[in-house]
Amino acid sequence: MRRLVPLWGRTVKDTGEIRLEHGSGGALSRDLVEKVIHPFFKGDSYSELLDAGPLEKGSDLLMTTDGYVVDPPFFPGGDIGRLSIFGTCNDLSVSGAKPLCISLALVIEEGFPLADLRRALASAAEAAREAEVRIVTGDTKVVPRGKGGGLFITSTGVGRRVFPLPLSPGRVQTGDAVIVSAPIGSHGLTVLAAREALPVAGALRSDAAYLYPAVSALFPLGEKLRFMRDATRGGIASVLNEIVQSSPWGIAVKDDAFPVTDDVRTVSSLLGLNPLEIANEGVFVALVAGDSKERALDILHSHPLGREARLVGRVSADSPGRVLTTTRIGGTRIVDFPRGLLLPRIC
Amino acid sequence: MRRLVPLWGRTVKDTGEIRLEHGSGGALSRDLVEKVIHPFFKGDSYSELLDAGPLEKGSDLLMTTDGYVVDPPFFPGGDIGRLSIFGTCNDLSVSGAKPLCISLALVIEEGFPLADLRRALASAAEAAREAEVRIVTGDTKVVPRGKGGGLFITSTGVGRRVFPLPLSPGRVQTGDAVIVSAPIGSHGLTVLAAREALPVAGALRSDAAYLYPAVSALFPLGEKLRFMRDATRGGIASVLNEIVQSSPWGIAVKDDAFPVTDDVRTVSSLLGLNPLEIANEGVFVALVAGDSKERALDILHSHPLGREARLVGRVSADSPGRVLTTTRIGGTRIVDFPRGLLLPRIC
Repeated sequence: MRRLVPLWGRTVKDTGEIRLEHGSGGALSRDLVEKVIHPFFKGDSYSELLDAGPLEKGSDLLMTTDGYVVDPPFFPGGDIGRLSIFGTCNDLSVSGAKPLCISLALVIEEGFPLADLRRALASAAEAAREAEVRIVTGDTKVVPRGKGGGLFITSTGVGRRVFPLPLSPGRVQTGDAVIVSAPIGSHGLTVLAAREALPVAGALRSDAAYLYPAVSALFPLGEKLRFMRDATRGGIASVLNEIVQSSPWGIAVKDDAFPVTDDVRTVSSLLGLNPLEIANEGVFVALVAGDSKERALDILHSHPLGREARLVGRVSADSPGRVLTTTRIGGTRIVDFPRGLLLPRIC
Repeated sequence: MRRLVPLWGRTVKDTGEIRLEHGSGGALSRDLVEKVIHPFFKGDSYSELLDAGPLEKGSDLLMTTDGYVVDPPFFPGGDIGRLSIFGTCNDLSVSGAKPLCISLALVIEEGFPLADLRRALASAAEAAREAEVRIVTGDTKVVPRGKGGGLFITSTGVGRRVFPLPLSPGRVQTGDAVIVSAPIGSHGLTVLAAREALPVAGALRSDAAYLYPAVSALFPLGEKLRFMRDATRGGIASVLNEIVQSSPWGIAVKDDAFPVTDDVRTVSSLLGLNPLEIANEGVFVALVAGDSKERALDILHSHPLGREARLVGRVSADSPGRVLTTTRIGGTRIVDFPRGLLLPRIC
């Protein structure tokens, strides 16, 4: 087992360089995107911070892109090929679009085993069949040994809008219910355990899944369905904070309401990690009108990917711009964007 | 000056691993794509080896993707940001589509200077304005030091088909003229000279350019315009060989017909490189009906990016599946896919 300490908790200071924390999905990631990247693309819909943007104004076709750099490329429950298809399809799904097609761009490091490349591609092809998306174009680059990380895959997806309303924080109202679709934390812990060869690895399995079937099951809620987001890098904590940011309302959740398996609870506690901050690949957050929460939960519970969906909190006017959680012993604390958490190459 | 020898000419053998030659744009790149990657995506239009594929059957929207891993990221005449926009727009352009929008996915290595990131993004944003494409979505990943190559950008573009006929080898006929739009070899040599700090660098400048204005100027040729392709990795030699591959005809060119600047001629000769095999970022090959070659050249000559366009050869029934060149002293030799040529990270 290699030393784990350098993976997280390092002091964050501004060195004028990209740091690992910039890729964590937490506060620093947000800083990088908002302060460094977005200013160059003002006016483009990119700057609206959406997971998926329309090809042109008024188009019902949405586009999304994601780079997959997960290390190791194969782990229990998934691999980089499967992630590269499902992750991108999931971003379209939670934006209300049915995934249509995908492009795959590979950056491969010299020395990467051809057998592993084939294994990853076979898995991507199988995932594409499962999601019924066509791979319409691709690209392959090779970089010298020491200048890459084995295999990186960037997949870009286009989907057709099915849900007619925007699924954005702008439609959220006080009193809305916050639902988490499935047990959290398994993907991030699984990858970490596989990378570091932790003795706990046996019990863990990534939740990598194609979410469109579960997500679209909620579309009949119509305007009662306000917002959805898959909880990947930065976990549930990042998603909830993105929702409340610059909003006149906040979110109140309960610590013990979140679905967490015993395995994830044990391992994350052992490693000093908060399950709310760990990446998932098969979990989404849905905000629905308060009067529709039972119906939403019924729908999800009847679906294989939502069997363990839980109501975790509600939108509240009491704490504008903040996510507050009630702890098991009755206290209240702020759930912030993850800070200084260093789990690089988790997806 | 570092040793150049390891950059090319190494013996090619099958080690079961990805080798640098797999990324050269030459014979090995083609092997990798055709034998390793495509078999997994049979039935997807990906397997048709087009630069851009329709989003769905019958759609007039085409999609293309490209990873940019150029080293160094900044060089005379261009940079990775500019390449990432223009290169992807050019793939759409030569497919007969007007570029509409782009996604940008960044994979940044820990330690990469924020100032360089800003410089590359500013350049990408400026290029997007020049090409009138919107950046609709993006993604940012950070990989640990030693697991990346500074900055990689994968851009994916969608464009709307403007030219109504397929620009594919299937429409090419014996007697068609082969035109090269601009002087060749400057991009690849410029990047190589910048990377290796060659003393010749001063005279060289990348030709990175947005080709749609020049390409679309040929659209009025209608069915007389058969095929176009930008000559990037693998250079003119790869493009011509891709055209003739599995065709009942071949291409006959003349060595001294190709537009080559004195600088490129001198430097490539010094380095033992063939300008036909060097990457370009502002050059395309057009095949037009023989009776329309003068008109095509007139159109290109009146355009800033085609001022030095040249007729370089013609499609011939004499050498099916082969590109033959007549040398200056009157002999004939085969122009093959570049082999063993190692100019990694050239785009």
